[in-house]
Amino acid sequence: MRTIKLTIEYDGTDFRGWQKQNQGERTVQGEIESALTQILQEPISITGAGRTDTGVHALGQVAHFKTRSDLAITKIPAACNANIGDDVVVLKADEIADDFHAQYSAREKRYRYTIIHRDVRPALERHRAWHIYGNLNFELMRSESQDFIGTHDFKSFQSLHSSNRGEKDTFRTISELTLKKTDNTIVIEIQANGFLYKMVRNIVGLLVDIGLGRVEKDQIRTILAQKDRKSAGSTAQAAGLKLLEIYY
Amino acid sequence: MRTIKLTIEYDGTDFRGWQKQNQGERTVQGEIESALTQILQEPISITGAGRTDTGVHALGQVAHFKTRSDLAITKIPAACNANIGDDVVVLKADEIADDFHAQYSAREKRYRYTIIHRDVRPALERHRAWHIYGNLNFELMRSESQDFIGTHDFKSFQSLHSSNRGEKDTFRTISELTLKKTDNTIVIEIQANGFLYKMVRNIVGLLVDIGLGRVEKDQIRTILAQKDRKSAGSTAQAAGLKLLEIYY
Repeated sequence: MRTIKLTIEYDGTDFRGWQKQNQGERTVQGEIESALTQILQEPISITGAGRTDTGVHALGQVAHFKTRSDLAITKIPAACNANIGDDVVVLKADEIADDFHAQYSAREKRYRYTIIHRDVRPALERHRAWHIYGNLNFELMRSESQDFIGTHDFKSFQSLHSSNRGEKDTFRTISELTLKKTDNTIVIEIQANGFLYKMVRNIVGLLVDIGLGRVEKDQIRTILAQKDRKSAGSTAQAAGLKLLEIYY
Repeated sequence: MRTIKLTIEYDGTDFRGWQKQNQGERTVQGEIESALTQILQEPISITGAGRTDTGVHALGQVAHFKTRSDLAITKIPAACNANIGDDVVVLKADEIADDFHAQYSAREKRYRYTIIHRDVRPALERHRAWHIYGNLNFELMRSESQDFIGTHDFKSFQSLHSSNRGEKDTFRTISELTLKKTDNTIVIEIQANGFLYKMVRNIVGLLVDIGLGRVEKDQIRTILAQKDRKSAGSTAQAAGLKLLEIYY
């Protein structure tokens, strides 16, 4: 058996997220598995580094799979890309050690979140940014954001949903969190050794609440200490989020 | 009669260009005229600063129209935006002098062109960039591009089409032309006192031909002097082009 690592880019707008659904809805995982199953002529299951929700994009999602096929590694991306939609693409395929696991071998992940701050809704970037209006104190968002850096219990920033009652270990280490503003666009990048469900969107949501004055300053450490999602403010829209890179 | 200036942003992907078509196809002009006609309760015709083709985007298209309506200027954008698709938005409306003309009053226009240079097709930016693969000499493109700056007869860079046999005066002045590269993305910005039909896409097409080695260096002045579209190389894809701003 060979183990193959895939690096994948997608526009999440027209996908029902990464993870294969029972109801036969279009998902990134489902689309790639179908193509690989056809190309390699055996049933293929792929394991992603992490799920992304409906509308979330990826520039460097990673997945792995096992196969008995001897198709040359260099032929896999093009063969796969000819059999999937134009909103998803396999950037590369690498032969990798048997014990590689896209999710469990990941050392860190990096996400980018984009906000358009202006009165009028965006048209061109409507599926790639969260629209915020009103007085927004960007410098306050930036200075407050640094309280997230380091190792904390992020339970207050974990959303729960029907199929996932949450992680037991809710400690994560954020190694980098940067905010940059160019004209009306705010770009937030965040890197950590792992993320709880909706953790990036919940962190961005709170930073926007702080920027808009809905949450007072110097509250981040208190909210972390409360370990309660209900105390932590808004959740940012899916469309603004891009999974940038997984580090192994 | 009042004269109103509109500043408009759109995602050109699902429009059959700016200009209203006879066949009832969806166009930006048609969509906005319908909304204004409904809001202002009289037939409205808008005049754009310039046409954009199918798939071309705009962050700052400008148009003007005349109206007898006394609807407050501050109410026009929101009223219009509630009645048009989410891929187009009126950014602002300004009351302006009677002799203002979106096309003829324009002093300069600025466009941005985006290229993604890599082996694999783009997924996320597939409707906003031109995909180029193969060895591309970016520094050569940048140095050669400066031969376009200044006043020239751009007849070699004017495309002709059925409804437009071309401008008689084909002299234009390019005041700025910059190329920047970040990772795999090349962004070209070009500003001039006017553009012939497909002039930006034809300039970018030739620069890519030069970068790929399909056209030798030091040919731009010669091609300009030939005043013949057939001597001037490729036309860049519509999807990579954005109309940034019109200066009055």
